[in-house]
Formats: sequence, C-alpha cells, structure tokens
Amino acid sequence: MALPMLRAEPSKMPAVLTIAGSDSGGGAGIQADIKTFTALQCYGTSVITALTAQNTTGVQGVHPAPPTFVKQQLHSVLGDIEVKAMKTGMLFDAENTRAVVSALKEHYADRPIPPLVCDPVCVSTSGHTLLNPDAVEVLVSELFPLSALITPNRSEAELVLSHRQLPCSIESLEDMLRAARDMLSLGPKAVLLKGGHITSTMEDVERVLTQRPDLNVIRDGLLGENMEILLVNSKDTASDAMAVDVLQEQDTTTLFVRPWIDSTSTHGTGCTLSAALVCELGHGNSVVDATRAASRYTHIAIETASPMGSGNGPLNHLHPIISRSVPLPSRTNPHPLIRTLIFHTNDLWKAYVEHDFVKQLGSGTLARESFLHFIKQDYLYLKYYARAYGLLAAKSSTFSSIDAATKTIINIITEVSMHRSYCAEWGIDEDELRRTPESPATTAYGAYLLDIGLQGDSSRLIMALAACLLGYGEVGLWLMKEAAKPNTWVKLYGNPYLKWIQDYSGEDYQAAVAIGIKTLETMAVADPPSATRFQEWLGVWQECTRLEKGFWDMAMGLL
Amino acid sequence: MALPMLRAEPSKMPAVLTIAGSDSGGGAGIQADIKTFTALQCYGTSVITALTAQNTTGVQGVHPAPPTFVKQQLHSVLGDIEVKAMKTGMLFDAENTRAVVSALKEHYADRPIPPLVCDPVCVSTSGHTLLNPDAVEVLVSELFPLSALITPNRSEAELVLSHRQLPCSIESLEDMLRAARDMLSLGPKAVLLKGGHITSTMEDVERVLTQRPDLNVIRDGLLGENMEILLVNSKDTASDAMAVDVLQEQDTTTLFVRPWIDSTSTHGTGCTLSAALVCELGHGNSVVDATRAASRYTHIAIETASPMGSGNGPLNHLHPIISRSVPLPSRTNPHPLIRTLIFHTNDLWKAYVEHDFVKQLGSGTLARESFLHFIKQDYLYLKYYARAYGLLAAKSSTFSSIDAATKTIINIITEVSMHRSYCAEWGIDEDELRRTPESPATTAYGAYLLDIGLQGDSSRLIMALAACLLGYGEVGLWLMKEAAKPNTWVKLYGNPYLKWIQDYSGEDYQAAVAIGIKTLETMAVADPPSATRFQEWLGVWQECTRLEKGFWDMAMGLL
Repeated sequence: MALPMLRAEPSKMPAVLTIAGSDSGGGAGIQADIKTFTALQCYGTSVITALTAQNTTGVQGVHPAPPTFVKQQLHSVLGDIEVKAMKTGMLFDAENTRAVVSALKEHYADRPIPPLVCDPVCVSTSGHTLLNPDAVEVLVSELFPLSALITPNRSEAELVLSHRQLPCSIESLEDMLRAARDMLSLGPKAVLLKGGHITSTMEDVERVLTQRPDLNVIRDGLLGENMEILLVNSKDTASDAMAVDVLQEQDTTTLFVRPWIDSTSTHGTGCTLSAALVCELGHGNSVVDATRAASRYTHIAIETASPMGSGNGPLNHLHPIISRSVPLPSRTNPHPLIRTLIFHTNDLWKAYVEHDFVKQLGSGTLARESFLHFIKQDYLYLKYYARAYGLLAAKSSTFSSIDAATKTIINIITEVSMHRSYCAEWGIDEDELRRTPESPATTAYGAYLLDIGLQGDSSRLIMALAACLLGYGEVGLWLMKEAAKPNTWVKLYGNPYLKWIQDYSGEDYQAAVAIGIKTLETMAVADPPSATRFQEWLGVWQECTRLEKGFWDMAMGLL
Repeated sequence: MALPMLRAEPSKMPAVLTIAGSDSGGGAGIQADIKTFTALQCYGTSVITALTAQNTTGVQGVHPAPPTFVKQQLHSVLGDIEVKAMKTGMLFDAENTRAVVSALKEHYADRPIPPLVCDPVCVSTSGHTLLNPDAVEVLVSELFPLSALITPNRSEAELVLSHRQLPCSIESLEDMLRAARDMLSLGPKAVLLKGGHITSTMEDVERVLTQRPDLNVIRDGLLGENMEILLVNSKDTASDAMAVDVLQEQDTTTLFVRPWIDSTSTHGTGCTLSAALVCELGHGNSVVDATRAASRYTHIAIETASPMGSGNGPLNHLHPIISRSVPLPSRTNPHPLIRTLIFHTNDLWKAYVEHDFVKQLGSGTLARESFLHFIKQDYLYLKYYARAYGLLAAKSSTFSSIDAATKTIINIITEVSMHRSYCAEWGIDEDELRRTPESPATTAYGAYLLDIGLQGDSSRLIMALAACLLGYGEVGLWLMKEAAKPNTWVKLYGNPYLKWIQDYSGEDYQAAVAIGIKTLETMAVADPPSATRFQEWLGVWQECTRLEKGFWDMAMGLL
C-alpha cells in the first residue's frame, strides 16, 4: 500500500475543478476547495455559481451568478485545461444546476467524463438555504447520474430521499445503510453518506456487522491491533462516540469508523472532504482509497485547527504541508543550496576566499615561511580529509556513493604527492613533513570533520567537506579572474606560487568542484531538509568556513 | 537576517485578505491569491469584485458583483476576522472601487488600517479592460492614500500618470525612477514600479548609479561576489536582459535586479506578487524585505511552472511547499509516527509481538531450553544494545540527549542483572553466560544497530533502537490484557516465566516505553522528515522488527 501524503512531482500536478459558491470568510466554498487542492498538490480551477457574504458566524448574503455566466466559466475552464477530476458544491438554484449539467454534457458528449464528486449542498450549518427547493429534482435526476460519487450528510440525504418519497428518517447506522443504498439507486456510481451528525459507537458497528458480515470496515482513525503501548493516554472503548461514514458502491459497502471530534472548527467540513476526494481521484486512486485518504485529511484538519472568528472556525487546510528551506533549482538559479549557504555566511566566506594569504599568494609577495608552514600543515590536514572521505564511504548506502567517496580519496592522495613535490622544491623532505607538529588550527579542522562524520548522517559530512572543496576552487578562479583584469595586482609570470594557483584553477580540480556542487544540490532536491535540518547544514558549513579562515590565519601568524 | 521561507507555526498563521476578481482558470485573481496565501502559510479570505470567465488564452467574459454586495462581503470578513494585511486587485469599476474604499474607511475609522497593497489592475495581459476608465480617478484619489504600497506595472503607471497629466512615457530606468517618485506623490506610502515590461541591463543600472549614488541595489536573483564557482553554466554579463523593479519609499529608493525570464508561464504574475507581498507584510516584515521575498517567490514560481492550457500558463504557486510524510499529532492521534510505522509493517509487527515464543511464554508452556537459550542470547544482545546507546550519546548535540542515552545504558545494566538472577535461578552462572557462543540472529541484530549508528544520524539510530524497546513493552501489555480476559489462555499463577511478564508489563519498563514514544514523536514534529528520509526511518524500523522476530525464531529453533 502506498504511503499516505506522498505526492507526485509538481510537474505531474493534476488539474482539478470545483463548481461551487464563494465564501468570503475563506473557510468553505471554492476558497476551502482551492486551499485543499493546493495542500494536496493539485492545480485548482473553479466555476463560481454564487457569491456569498459569509463568515464563521453564518451567511449574511447570497448573490447568484447568472446561469449563462456559470456556463461561460465552465466553457472557459474545460475548453482550455484537461481536468482530471471535479466536484460540485453549492449550486444555488435549478437554473444554475441545469447550466452545469448541460455544459458538462456538451463537453463530455464524445468522451468519458472525469470522476465527478457531487456534494449535494442544500443548507448551511448555520441554517441558510444554499439550494432552492425546485433545484433538488434537477440535482437528483440530472447531476447524480453523471457523478462518480455523491457525498450527502444526514440532512441532505433526508431531503433527497423524502423528495423521492423514499424512507427518509436517518437515526441509526442501520438507517444509514438503507439510505445509502436507496441513494445509489438514484443514479450515482457511489454514495458516501457522512455520519458526522449521527453519533454511533463501536457497539453499533459490531451489531450491524452481525447482520451484514459482508460489510468492509476501515478503522483508520482508531488504534488497531497490537497497539497497546499507544493506549496510555487515550482509550478506545466500545461506548465512545464514533463518526461512521457509509460508502455504498455497486457491489460493496464500506464503513469508515473514526473517533467523533468535539470541535467548533468545522466550518467548511463538507467542502473540504469533497475537495480532498477530488484530489485523490485526480491522482488516480480508487474510491475506497480516496475516501480513506480524504477522510484522514479532513479529520486532521479539524483536529489541528486554531480558533478563528467568533463562530464555527475554519479547518486547518495546511496541515499536510511544510515549507521548503532550500528553493527549487531553476534555470537562472541552478544552484540554490550553495547560493543560500554563501548568502547566509557572506562575510565569513569572503574573509576565507579573499584572505590576505590568498592575496599575497596572488601577488607573489607571500613570505616563503608562511607558504611552507601552510603547505606542511595542509599536508597533515589532508590526512584527516582523506580519512573523512573514508568515513563517508563507510556511511554510504549505494555502490555509486562508495565509489565517489573512494575516488575522492585517490584525488587527495594525488594532491598530497603534489604537496611532496612542492616541499621537495622548497627543500623540505618527506621525513621533515612527517615530523612537523600539528598546529591547533589543523587539529581543530581535521578533528571537526571526523566529529561531524561520527555525529551526523552522510549529508552532514558532505556539507562539512564542501567548504574546503568549494573554497579552494573559488580561490583559484578568483585569482585567475583578477589576473585577467587590466593593471591587475595578481602576478602570474615569475610568481613563486604560480603552480599552486594553476592547480586549483585548473581543469582537474574544477571538475571535482563541479561534481561536489552537483552532489550537494541533488541531495537538497532528493531529500529536502526541514528547517531544523537545514540549520544543521548551515551550521556545519559556517563552522568549516571559519576553520578554513583560521587555517590561513595560522599560516600567516605561523601558529 | 532571517532565513527565507521559514514560517511561523500554523497556529500563528496571519489572516490576510484579497479584494479582487475571480479567475475561473485558477492562475490569476483571488484563486492565485488564495494559492499564494496557502503556500506562504497565511489564512486567506477574499472579497470578490467581479467574476470572470477566463483561461490561459484570455478573458472571455466579466460579471461584476453589485457594489452593495462587495461592501457586504467586506463587512462579513472584517467584522469577524482580524486581518493582518490585505490587497486589492481588479476592482472593475468606479462604484466597486468606491464601495471598497468606504467599507475600509468605516472599519478602520478609529484604528490603523493594516498594510494594504494596491495592485492597480487596469488591463489584462491579453488586452481585456479590467478597470473602467472612470474608476481611475477613484483609485488614485481615494484608494492610493490608504495604501502601504502600490504595485503598478509599466502600462498601469503610464495610465495613472497620464490621467494626472504627469510625464507618462516609461522607456528607461531613468523614466522608471521619475515615474515611481511621481506616483508616490499621489498618496501611497510606497510605490513598487515593476520592470517586467522594460528590459534593462546591468550597464543601465551602473549608469543610473553614477547619477544617483543614493540608490540601494538588491541583486537578489543574480550571483553575488565570491561565487565564481557557480558561473560554470550561467554567466551574468553586463549586457544580459534584466528585470529591474523600483521601490520608491518616502526617503529611499531601492532597485531590485533579477535576470529577465523568457517564459510563457506568466498568467497572474502581478496578482501573485501582490499576494506574496501581503503575506510578507502580514508576517510583519518591512516593505524592502517583503519586496525581496515576494519577488523571489514570484520569480521561482514562473521559472518552475509547467505548461498548462494553450495560452500563457499559470505560475507554480506551490514551489515553496513539500508534503509532510508523518501527519501532525492531534487529540485523537497523539502518536502519528508510531501508528504510521506499525500500520506500514503490520504483519511483521504482529508476527513479532504475537510470536509463538510469546504465546508459549504467556501460557507457561515454553520449553525450558528455549527460554534459557533466549535469555543467554538476550544477555549477549544487550551488550550491543547498551553500546548502541553509547554511540547515541556520542552522536548527541545537547547535554539532555547525552543524559537520556546514558540513563538508558544504566537501565540496560539493571536489565542485565535481572538476566543474571534469572540465569542463576535456572542454574546458569555468569561464567557460562560469558562463554555462550553468539547465535547468528544475535550478531545480525546487534551489529545492525551499530551499523545504523555508524551510517546515519541520531534519528536513524533512535529509530533502530525503537523496535526492541516498544516491542517488548507491547508484549508485556498484550499478555496482561489477554490474562485479564475471561477463560484466558494466559497463565499467570504458577507460570515459570511470570517474573519476565511482570518485568516488561511493569511500571518501570512502561515508563521507559512512554519516554521512547515521546522522543520519537517529538523528533518527527521538530524535524519533519522528507519522503526520502521517512522511507529510511521506515526501512530501519522494518528491518529491526524482522530481526526481533528472527531472534525469537532462533530461540524456538535453538539456532
């Protein structure tokens, strides 16, 4: 079974449509629908049948849209955008209901209509009529047959059933089962009769099951078997109030059992549920799976809502989403992670890559002792650095990441042999290199890398290794860029450190930098960090930038 | 400076308002606004001034709302919900503009009006008139003075300036600077003149800066200094096309420079920018910071959009959000992480906690050799388990988490002494315990814990340690629950393993289980895992559940 809440890539967002009223207060109507579509990663379009002046306390006024204009909106949407699923909410009157039906029939005359969820909104929670009585017959005889699913609550079901002279009183779970089957006979492919206004218990469910062993029961909101440890603070008992929804399909009946919630944050519950159903159907799920997921979404939205307004407040439509900490890559910003890291450590990064050590190296004026001290300490540092990549190999989960870490170690070994030849040129042999005592700056940086490797996952270690890789690449390119300017302060010809500059600005090293950048950016897209985790990454990057600067301070001060 | 995209908790969501037209196609109007509000974690309300039948190819029809109804919607919203910031978009005609102004003046007669962003929408990109000519004077003379910020584009600025007989031709950056200052004189607190329809270059910006060194320049979308390594594939050159927005405040002028984007996904750009500004202002940011963040949001939304419809497609409003993998905790589901883990490994979890070993232990029929084999191997396993908590202490970043891991080690040492006394009762001395060879099931499980500890961060190690802690707690509670049933198969009195059952169902052990559950749930809320990371957690949980089952298989088979 698929994990809940895992969604397709934004580029695969299905387009969905709501045909309903507008709620100025934002808790119900097309506003609740658009919020739900957005939270569930769908592209929302809307046809407005009526405006309402409405807030959490009730409906203060209704201004219906002319039927021709409802039709025109539908043509605009369906004529341009391929809608994967749709819903109807408040249709207001018979003319608008007919306008919707005729536009849908025109558009889907020669091809199958996408799943349509009909929420037969008739009366608001606050008692305001949202569907004129003469519209009920149009709804039932014309719209129900087009619907993949209708989602009446108790009073809507009672209204429709009594209109058709069917038994209409719904007091018990048994009544609900009968009513759902009767409503199925009116033409829709499935009926979800919502039990929010009929309190049931597990005893009721068990009783019904003894009569109807064919029923499927989904106890999604309840503790299942083998969850005794989760019972500490909340006990499910047979007499607890439950909300039971009945899903009647052609050959199967499914009960969805959830704890009944005592909350005033319920304005727009029906709109939200049907909008979530549209998203799930638009993502290609079955009616049962869609009902399970949409009910869960709605349930949590009620439970995590904060009070707003002085009446029945809105649901928390936003509960299944969190904010990205690193922007998505785009054409003009293919490297959002690195940019963000540098942006947030701007002064420190500059102090590192434009360090006096670098400037004097570029102008060729750096004291020979400073460079030798640096080269010897860098030789010692590189041992830590290679070991850290060894640790990264050990922390890897794929052969390709083991391979990448190992190849880097081989590159470091090559870099080290470069160091040896420098040192030989400057009269330092390998024995002296080995006997050089480690500076505190070297130990601090090297040991920090290994500590991060011990403490975190591979992403944190990759972050720790980045400041060195990227910073030396930046220094190499910056010096060559400065060297290319007229009257430059950089001296290449006759610079005793020319080879160093060439090595770090050269193709081989820059290729390694490019791979490093790609690794980091790919990581942030594949496993987007939470705000907390991004702060950890940023903290590591910042500390390593500081340690890099300290390394050159050390070389200048010969500490 | 604050990190981009980090938002307040959902409970701190500011309520914001848009007063604008409806776009059935969903890319502009209040639909774009509501999507933007949702993506930027605000609670959206809306007052609809006119309906449009519209899609990506243009506006096919407009149905204005009556002015009295515009006013009624505004009263419904403002009379019930404390709005932190608001915007106006398409107002359509003079009467509706007046209705908006008078309702705002009534509501904020005796208290300051919240930041109002006026997007002076006059003409659609497709050329459709969205503001009747006679409304321009009302907009300028009555709404501008109430506005914290107006956000005209080139043609809107030209229209307004020509209406007031001010120099109105805007061809260059210099013209923009003059026009922005002239528009400020019309009454708003600030003017953001958008440069999307005037291509500039960095040379233009440099030229203007030599005349006006007082200008602030924010090159947010461009590479900054010390980013040579990011120039590999994209070069910013002096002659590249740029979009420059001019923000004119009372005493300061700021230029926002971004690469000009060549895209057809631009339907609703103005609506989206002003809606994002409202969110930033609603979150309490300054106008400059709000402009920087809102421009970045809009820019990425254009760049990451997928084509939709046959005309100018909508922006990708959803780019700054990702889906939660673990639902938020709520009253009826305080433990969503553990529930989700058990739900996804249901059969395996049941096979572990209702293992034959457990059942025979409960009924007292378990072979003595099996129990002794188990106890001896468990003794050896607990050494790994204690070491894994040692590793967790080493991976911790706070004294409290070091303390928690250490206290668990002490509990394990106590558990071990319990094992020693069991063994003594059953005639096994410490020497024999030490000499027992490790079963493969023991090594597999123990070494797996340490491997996860090496490979991942502390969250993954905590996940690995959970199956043992929680499973034994579940077994203890389940056996006691079964024992309490009439005609139970569980035998407590005279059961040779009674003490084992009592230990794991007892207060001390269950207190540890409760702490473990809390740690896990807190972790998932504080640092919500991405889909990738959640799959890692689930994989570890599943493997440990399998290894636990294998441990009891081993005890039954004496392997």
